[in-house]
Amino acid sequence: MTRYQHLAELLAQRIEQGLYLSGERLPSVRTLSSEHGVSISTVQQAYHLLEERRLITPQPRSGYFVTPHKAEPPVPPLTRPAQRPVEITQWDAVLELLNARQEKDVLQLGSGMPDLNQPTLKPLWKIMSRIGHQQDVRMLNYDNIYGVPELREQIARLAVDGGCHLVPEDIVITTGCHEALSVSIRAVCQPGDIVAVESPTFHGTMQSLRGFGIKAIEIPTDSETGISLEALELALEQWPIKAVVVVPNCNNPLGFIMPEARKRALLALAQRFDVAIVEDDVYGELAYEYPRPSTIKSFDDEGRVLLCSSFSKTVAPGLRVGWVVPGRYLDRVLHMKYIVTGSTATQTQMAAAEFVRLGHYPAHLRRMRQHYQRNLEIFTHWVRHYFPCGICVTRPQGGFLMWIELPEAFDAVRLNKELREAKLQVAVGSLFSASGKYRNCLRLSYAQPFTEKTGRALEILGAAVERAMEQCGIATPLSLKAQEGRISMGEEN
Amino acid sequence: MTRYQHLAELLAQRIEQGLYLSGERLPSVRTLSSEHGVSISTVQQAYHLLEERRLITPQPRSGYFVTPHKAEPPVPPLTRPAQRPVEITQWDAVLELLNARQEKDVLQLGSGMPDLNQPTLKPLWKIMSRIGHQQDVRMLNYDNIYGVPELREQIARLAVDGGCHLVPEDIVITTGCHEALSVSIRAVCQPGDIVAVESPTFHGTMQSLRGFGIKAIEIPTDSETGISLEALELALEQWPIKAVVVVPNCNNPLGFIMPEARKRALLALAQRFDVAIVEDDVYGELAYEYPRPSTIKSFDDEGRVLLCSSFSKTVAPGLRVGWVVPGRYLDRVLHMKYIVTGSTATQTQMAAAEFVRLGHYPAHLRRMRQHYQRNLEIFTHWVRHYFPCGICVTRPQGGFLMWIELPEAFDAVRLNKELREAKLQVAVGSLFSASGKYRNCLRLSYAQPFTEKTGRALEILGAAVERAMEQCGIATPLSLKAQEGRISMGEEN
Repeated sequence: MTRYQHLAELLAQRIEQGLYLSGERLPSVRTLSSEHGVSISTVQQAYHLLEERRLITPQPRSGYFVTPHKAEPPVPPLTRPAQRPVEITQWDAVLELLNARQEKDVLQLGSGMPDLNQPTLKPLWKIMSRIGHQQDVRMLNYDNIYGVPELREQIARLAVDGGCHLVPEDIVITTGCHEALSVSIRAVCQPGDIVAVESPTFHGTMQSLRGFGIKAIEIPTDSETGISLEALELALEQWPIKAVVVVPNCNNPLGFIMPEARKRALLALAQRFDVAIVEDDVYGELAYEYPRPSTIKSFDDEGRVLLCSSFSKTVAPGLRVGWVVPGRYLDRVLHMKYIVTGSTATQTQMAAAEFVRLGHYPAHLRRMRQHYQRNLEIFTHWVRHYFPCGICVTRPQGGFLMWIELPEAFDAVRLNKELREAKLQVAVGSLFSASGKYRNCLRLSYAQPFTEKTGRALEILGAAVERAMEQCGIATPLSLKAQEGRISMGEEN
Repeated sequence: MTRYQHLAELLAQRIEQGLYLSGERLPSVRTLSSEHGVSISTVQQAYHLLEERRLITPQPRSGYFVTPHKAEPPVPPLTRPAQRPVEITQWDAVLELLNARQEKDVLQLGSGMPDLNQPTLKPLWKIMSRIGHQQDVRMLNYDNIYGVPELREQIARLAVDGGCHLVPEDIVITTGCHEALSVSIRAVCQPGDIVAVESPTFHGTMQSLRGFGIKAIEIPTDSETGISLEALELALEQWPIKAVVVVPNCNNPLGFIMPEARKRALLALAQRFDVAIVEDDVYGELAYEYPRPSTIKSFDDEGRVLLCSSFSKTVAPGLRVGWVVPGRYLDRVLHMKYIVTGSTATQTQMAAAEFVRLGHYPAHLRRMRQHYQRNLEIFTHWVRHYFPCGICVTRPQGGFLMWIELPEAFDAVRLNKELREAKLQVAVGSLFSASGKYRNCLRLSYAQPFTEKTGRALEILGAAVERAMEQCGIATPLSLKAQEGRISMGEEN
C-alpha cells in the first residue's frame, strides 16, 4: 500500500467510525500534511481517492466535506392488495427474468443468487472431489424417495436452531426449496382452491399456484412485522381458503422477521379455520440476529405446518438440495415428490450432508451472515446516496434482498427496459404480485461483494429512477442534486 | 482351476454349443475317465458340479442327462384392459415398492436400476472428481431454466441416432426423465382430462396422471408390436382424449420396439384427432439392434410429440439428468419446469455433458447393450428352467426388463408377501395398470450381472410361483417336476 492509500484508508476509517461526522468539514490539506508528516501531494492524492469513493465531497473554496448521509428513507407502508382471490398472471415477466439470467454481461441486481466466492465454501469443493475419488456406486444410483439418510439426519440436527425437534423420518429431501414448496402446495390443495399469500410474495410460489390451477388471495403485509393477521382473519372468514403460504423469517422480498407472538397468532388462526401453513424458511438461517428466529413449525404440535427449506441461499443453489417437513401431510407429499422427480440427485445430497457433518456449515453460515449484514450497510448507504428522495426502503433483518418502493405512478417495467442498455437489470416488483401490483417497486440483491462496478450500477440505477420519476411528473424536491445544492450552502439534511 | 473344474467347464461348453443335445444321455463316468485320462472321481466331481449348476440331471441307474430346455414359453397375448377412462389407483403399492428399495438385504428382482459396476463408467468418476478440483463457481450456482448449454449441445448430437435433428434450443433439461414426463403431461393436460396409455404402462407415468387429477384410458398393447392402433382409434373416437403417452422403444415393462410403420401410423392418428404424444424414450438407447430404432419424434414435423428421456438407464440414475424436447409446447413445459424444480443440479449436468463430450458415452452404451443382451439370454434360460409351464414371457428387444404373465387366477401381490421372507421382491404387475389389473404378472430385471445369488433367487421364485399356482388350483401339468418325470422315461418335451 502506498503512503497516500494508507492515509486514505485511515481517513475512511475515521469517517466510518463517526470521528468525522456526516457533512462535517475535513481538516485542510496543510493541516493533515503536517499532522501525518507526509507531503501536500500525498494528502491531495488521498483526498482525491476518497472523493472517487464518494466518501468526501469537495466544495469550491471551502475544502473537503464528509459526504452527508441523506435522511433515512422510511420503510414501505402496509401493502394494500385487492382482497379477493385472483388468477395469477406474470408468468411472461418471470420467464423474461429467467431468460435475462443467461445474458452473461448483464449485472443482475435483482437476482436471488447468494455469494459463492467465500473461502468457507472451499471444503465443499474438496468433498465433491472426494466423492469422485471414492467411487461409491451408491452415488450413481437412485436415491430412495425420502432422501439419503445421512442428510436427513444432519437436517434434523440443524432444525433445532429454528426450534424444531425432528427425527430424520420427519424429513423428505427435495430438489431445492422450489420442489419443497411445489409438492407442499399440491399436497394440501386441489385445482380451483384458494391459497392466501403475503403481498408481495416470492414469484416462484405464485407460479406454482398458477401452474396447479390454484387462485391466490394476497394479504396486506407489513414490511417489518409480516402478514396482517387482521386482514388474514377477514379473508379466512370470507373465502374457503385451503392454505396460507408465508416466508416469516427473512422474508423474500421484504426482509422482515415476523415477531414470535405474531407467528403463534398466525398458527392459532390456521388452527381455528383448519387450514394448512406452508412455511418457506429458505432465508431463515441468514437472520442477522443470533440465535436465529424460530420457525412457525416449532410451535406446531398438530403437524399442520409444512416447513420448506434448502441449502440454495445458505450454501449453493446449484446443488438443488432442499427439504420439506410435511407433518401430517407426509403421504401426499411423498406422492407429489414421486411424480415430480422420483428422487433427488444422490451425489449432491451426500456432498451437502458431508459439508454439515464435518462442521463446515456453521462456520460458513456465520461468515455469510456477517458478509450480508455488512453488505446491507454499504448498499443502504449508496442507495440513499444515489437514489432520489421520496422512496421507501426496507430494513432487512436477514438474507440479502432489499425492497424499494417508489411513488405509485412509477413504472419499474419500463425502467428495466431502459436499464437493459446499461447492461443492468433489477427484479421488477410486479413479479411479486398475483395481479401484477407493485410495478412501482424493485427488489435489489446485496449478496455479491460491493465493488466499483456495483457502485456505478447503483449510480446509473439511481439516476434512471430519478429521470423516470421526473418523466412521470413525480416531484423529487429532495433529490440528490437539490440536496447537494443545500450542502454547498452549509445546510444539513 | 482344478482338474475337475476344467473338465466341467469343457462339458458345459459342449452342452452350450449343442454337441450334447437337450435331454441327451451323457457319456458314462468310465468312458469320460479314459477319454480324458483323468480319474473316476475327477469325472464324478465334474458331473456333480454340472448337476449343481442344473446343466445335467442324474437318473437312477441310467446315468446323467443334459437337463432339457423346456419349450420356449409363448409371449403374452394382446392385453385386454377396460376400454374406459379410469381414476388411477395403486399409489399405496408403488409406495410399498419404493419403501422396499430401502431394505438393503432384500434382492430387488423387479427394480428398474441399471448396472452401475461396468468399467466404462470409470471416466464418470474422474469427471466428477475433476469438477471438484476445478472449483468453477458456476457449478454451485443456479443453472438457467433450460439447462446448461454444453449438455443441451451434446444431447442434440445424440438425438441424431434416434432420427431427430435438433438444435440445443429445442431441449429443456430436467431432473431425470421423471420430471420430463411430469412436466410434459402437465403441459398438455388439465385436471379432469383423459390420457391414453399403453397397458401395462410405467407406474411413474400413471402416478403423474393421478397426481394431476387426470384419468387414464388403458389401451390394449401387444408385447411385440406395441399399443393397438385399432383400439386407440376407437378410444379417440369415443372419448375426448388429450394426449397419448407411449414408450415405443424398449418398452417398460413389455420390452418391445414398435415397428416403424406403426410409429408413423400412431403419429398420423394423433394428427387426425389433434392430440399430443408424450414419447418416453428412456430405454431407447439400450435397444439390442444397431442402429438404434427411431423415435416417433423423428417423424414429427408439427411439434406434436414431446420426447422425454434421461441418462438414468444408460449412465446413472443418481445423476437425475433428463430432458424433454417439447416441440410446440415449449412455453408450457418451461412454466411447469420452473414451478417444479426451478432448475436442475448444475454439477451433475456438467458431469453428464463431459461424459458425452469426451466420447465415453458410446463406448459405455455399446458395452451395456451387450451386457444386457447377454444377461437376457442367461436369465431367460433360468426362468425357463425354474418356472413352471403355463407362463408367458416377453422377448425384450432392448433394456433390461422382462414381463412374465401367469395364469389369470395367480396373485403376484400375495407372492411378493411370501417372497419377503426369502429377502426377495419382484415388481408386481398391478403397479403397471391404472385399475390394478395384471396382478397375475411380474416384472423382472436382468440388469445386474448374473451370480449364484441370482440363480438361487430365480429358483426360489420359480418354486414359489409353482406353489402359488398349485394353491390357486392352477394345473401345472408341464411343471418342472412333471417334466423331469417324463425325462426319466426318455420322453422329450
